[in-house]
Amino acid sequence: MLKEIFWGEAIKLASPYPYVLAVTVDREGKPNAIGLGWWTYVSWEPPMIAIAVGPKRYSYECLEHCGEFVLAYPAEDQWKGAWHCGTVSGRGRNKLAEAGLKTVPAKVVKPPLIEGATVCYECRVVERMRTGDHELFIADVVAIHGDPGKPKHLYSIGYEKLAALSHDELRTLARR
Amino acid sequence: MLKEIFWGEAIKLASPYPYVLAVTVDREGKPNAIGLGWWTYVSWEPPMIAIAVGPKRYSYECLEHCGEFVLAYPAEDQWKGAWHCGTVSGRGRNKLAEAGLKTVPAKVVKPPLIEGATVCYECRVVERMRTGDHELFIADVVAIHGDPGKPKHLYSIGYEKLAALSHDELRTLARR
Repeated sequence: MLKEIFWGEAIKLASPYPYVLAVTVDREGKPNAIGLGWWTYVSWEPPMIAIAVGPKRYSYECLEHCGEFVLAYPAEDQWKGAWHCGTVSGRGRNKLAEAGLKTVPAKVVKPPLIEGATVCYECRVVERMRTGDHELFIADVVAIHGDPGKPKHLYSIGYEKLAALSHDELRTLARR
Repeated sequence: MLKEIFWGEAIKLASPYPYVLAVTVDREGKPNAIGLGWWTYVSWEPPMIAIAVGPKRYSYECLEHCGEFVLAYPAEDQWKGAWHCGTVSGRGRNKLAEAGLKTVPAKVVKPPLIEGATVCYECRVVERMRTGDHELFIADVVAIHGDPGKPKHLYSIGYEKLAALSHDELRTLARR
């Protein structure tokens, strides 16, 4: 039976959520990445994505500065580094290097792709809006990369843990 | 190795995504529901959620009219009805009744809750923005309901199939 529950409880009960990294570059051109569960596709044609980032995050400054990001789906074997990116600030340190995540140049945008990821969307911010304690950055997807050989990517469970899953794997459980 | 791939391919590779219903009421007060994969949390405090809906959808008219929705996580045993809501229009028909989904009155908003769901968020639209071929409705969460006894809810695989998963279940696969 449905009963009233708290926000944090509901968010946990409604998890897991796909866990991604938003890769930016700072004023010095140093790549930075933030772990995100709050994002969605917002247009099919043209392809568009929105991400929600708190204004105190270093990635917020980087987004304001460079106006571009790469939305990367870290693959299963990158879980440790991906988790690291979601738990410490990139201010004054090289989070990606610490996380053991290698980057490769993107095709269009300044922030790099994450080598070995499942999918990387190159995104250019076209609009933004304040939503409560986060800012929503709305972006055009200007190039798309993927590796069908690495379909297993990460999901966050109540923002406390990461586990990996692929569409193929879940398909075996599919009801329709 | 990452290589350039098409948008549709990437969206499939990056799936599964949590699958929800947005429940509205039309001008006659009849409840309607649309299946959605494009939504996200956008603020922790105050609690806020955004959903992306195409302007040709009947739910778009309903949202314009009533300015409220219930974001419901259908539970595993509701997969057939939940899928039905994502594949036909509610214009001129009672989709929820056809889908075998029972409703119960919400606490604050006009649209009802889905009985037997995992989580239901009561939402009031506070802002909207056009994003390509969809409209983003930004909403305050004004009441929250859940059933910890029904944690298994639905995920869409490339928007072609539904499968069920719970946070507990995925936790057994968790890396950290």
